[in-house]
Amino acid sequence: MGKEKLNIALVGYGLRGWGMLIAELLPLDDVNVVAICDLYEDRIERAVGEVKAARNGYVPFTSTDYHEVVTRPDVDAVFIYAAWEEHVNIACAALEAGKCVALEVGGAYSVADCQRLVDTVERTKMPFMFLENCCYDERELAITNMVRDNVFGEIVHCKGGYKHDLRGEIIQGGLNLHHYRLRNYIGRNCDNYPTHELGPICKLLDINNGNRMVRLSSFASKARGLHDFVERAIPENKEMCDTVFQQGDVVNTIITCANGETILLTLDTSMPHTYCRDFTVEGTRGFYSEESHTFYLDKEPEYSDWWKGTIIDGAPADFNAYKEKYASPLWSNKEELKTHGHGGMDAICHRAAIDCFKDGTYPPIDIYDAVNLMVITPLSAESIRNGGMPVDIPDFTGGHWQKRVRKASGAFALDR
Amino acid sequence: MGKEKLNIALVGYGLRGWGMLIAELLPLDDVNVVAICDLYEDRIERAVGEVKAARNGYVPFTSTDYHEVVTRPDVDAVFIYAAWEEHVNIACAALEAGKCVALEVGGAYSVADCQRLVDTVERTKMPFMFLENCCYDERELAITNMVRDNVFGEIVHCKGGYKHDLRGEIIQGGLNLHHYRLRNYIGRNCDNYPTHELGPICKLLDINNGNRMVRLSSFASKARGLHDFVERAIPENKEMCDTVFQQGDVVNTIITCANGETILLTLDTSMPHTYCRDFTVEGTRGFYSEESHTFYLDKEPEYSDWWKGTIIDGAPADFNAYKEKYASPLWSNKEELKTHGHGGMDAICHRAAIDCFKDGTYPPIDIYDAVNLMVITPLSAESIRNGGMPVDIPDFTGGHWQKRVRKASGAFALDR
Repeated sequence: MGKEKLNIALVGYGLRGWGMLIAELLPLDDVNVVAICDLYEDRIERAVGEVKAARNGYVPFTSTDYHEVVTRPDVDAVFIYAAWEEHVNIACAALEAGKCVALEVGGAYSVADCQRLVDTVERTKMPFMFLENCCYDERELAITNMVRDNVFGEIVHCKGGYKHDLRGEIIQGGLNLHHYRLRNYIGRNCDNYPTHELGPICKLLDINNGNRMVRLSSFASKARGLHDFVERAIPENKEMCDTVFQQGDVVNTIITCANGETILLTLDTSMPHTYCRDFTVEGTRGFYSEESHTFYLDKEPEYSDWWKGTIIDGAPADFNAYKEKYASPLWSNKEELKTHGHGGMDAICHRAAIDCFKDGTYPPIDIYDAVNLMVITPLSAESIRNGGMPVDIPDFTGGHWQKRVRKASGAFALDR
Repeated sequence: MGKEKLNIALVGYGLRGWGMLIAELLPLDDVNVVAICDLYEDRIERAVGEVKAARNGYVPFTSTDYHEVVTRPDVDAVFIYAAWEEHVNIACAALEAGKCVALEVGGAYSVADCQRLVDTVERTKMPFMFLENCCYDERELAITNMVRDNVFGEIVHCKGGYKHDLRGEIIQGGLNLHHYRLRNYIGRNCDNYPTHELGPICKLLDINNGNRMVRLSSFASKARGLHDFVERAIPENKEMCDTVFQQGDVVNTIITCANGETILLTLDTSMPHTYCRDFTVEGTRGFYSEESHTFYLDKEPEYSDWWKGTIIDGAPADFNAYKEKYASPLWSNKEELKTHGHGGMDAICHRAAIDCFKDGTYPPIDIYDAVNLMVITPLSAESIRNGGMPVDIPDFTGGHWQKRVRKASGAFALDR
């Protein structure tokens, strides 16, 4: 029946690693945090303090070198929250050492890195799960269940975005807290963070399970938001005021799928606006939009004397009633979940990874899901560099996408 | 001081011609409707009835051949509301005959047609105005005034759409009322109707006045909405049930401008959803979205001890207060305007054309504005045919866009 307790090594103790350690790992009875790795000694010290406080003074192994951590015999699984650039390197080292890997989200830096990750998982046959928490959001899961029950008719178009005003985090977090986002906004121009919105869309469009993303085109606006911010927030910092940011403020990416659907993604993180993942699903009989809070379905067709025929018309529908009817069982304990990170998504996502690693079941967000999301970043960079030229999206399943069957994998399955 | 009365010929008496005749032309004291043209005798008969009733039994000249109408010596100006395919032909014939031309909106069928229209206006030097009514919407004008007063900082990205559930109009209007939309949805795949959302965006981005649209890429989803509609609404019509619709249900187009802004356009007319033009303006210091009813501006920067530095943050702002402060004088008589077509836009737009034609002033939506909007349609078709390949947008000003100065032209100027 698998392991009773999972021994975890945590790599990367920035803001995300900190949040996950204290909210999603240390409170779990079936998890031991036996090793901590970060590049910075001060962070390691704080992490050890958290483990000691939560676990009766237990002191985990620590190192600034992830190779030392991922090869330790007492480690079952490595949970990676490091800077984006090291995701694939750390994951591959852990897999090669025979460890299960849970990888925090982030875009890749090259198609080759994605292929290397796939090759390593396939060769080592070690369990790998991508921690795409938004796949587990209550709303996204309910809408996915509606899609599977044909509430929207045939799905034709989906939209998603990462619309999040990160100016303070990028600039001031980057300067004060070693935040890796800053250098990404200086050196790159791409959709650098596509997974939160695209993950749930891939699930509902059955990507890798009878459908696949075939190609994309990306377009970046000019980059003005961060420079304008720097000049107002830290005018005394001449170096930052003279810094050129390559990253366009708004990046739109359009993906075409094998079954004819289109997906529009928008990265929008360096100008003022409200937070929104812009989750939008459009079918022949219904429409849902997070941004406009619209849920709109065709009414039953009826005969009209005036038209001399059948009238078909859409109308706003009661979203709360549908959301309740199609609620995921993963969210049955909502009050308890609310106390966790990002309203509960983090807890469900970590629980799924831990259960898979303990029980040896197949992870609900697997290596092929992961690289589909991660590869958008380097491909969008390539398209932008070439004036919006379409770029093919690799088929990492090697043709298996057509016959792979969607699996429910235990109590924390993503799919009904 | 120009003409006291303008003699108008109306060409095209479908739903739009009917609406404009009775609401925007016949009520005006300074307008005579002296000629009517349509392909269908029954429509002509109804139009004559409307003129007689409103104008003491006056009977206008009528013909099913527009050449007979546009060459009549008593006609000063031709107002064109015909099917999209004939817009350029009728306009050129009228210009060649020395008439002023007001052209209803619609996409073009080729770049060559747009160039022919430009050449004809330049050669004949006759006044030409494009009846892009949404340029005159109260909201779009107020937002444009805010942009000019730097409320949003530097504009980086704009969005617009024609999201309108036209399934009944396309199918049942097409079969019963000769509506030209039906054949366009069968034979084409493009952004067939980009002007309503793009017109106001071009104005606020100073397109043709120091900025220009450089290239576009377009992407169409599969076409499922109309077939699904037909099978439910008119299952007895075997021919329509077997018809293949080429027009994708959702078409996204991304335009890049010379000054680095991007524009996202969405055509979405054959599936259920609420009406929305998706008007969105994003700058370094503010955000407006029609779809989400969001108006969000940077607050004044302030010093924070916690951050040890200046905090810059956005917050929702009072849209109604800004809308009032930046209201266009064109909307000062709002109560009266509300009784007109499309909430008043049609009245303002027709008034502007009529005043220009009477007074000889330069039209606020001119030939270069017109072809910029019309040309999106054939270019989007080309890009879609070629898998989303970027397509250059012609510079119809011949390089003059850099130095053309935005003009206020009288009481009905579009610009402050």
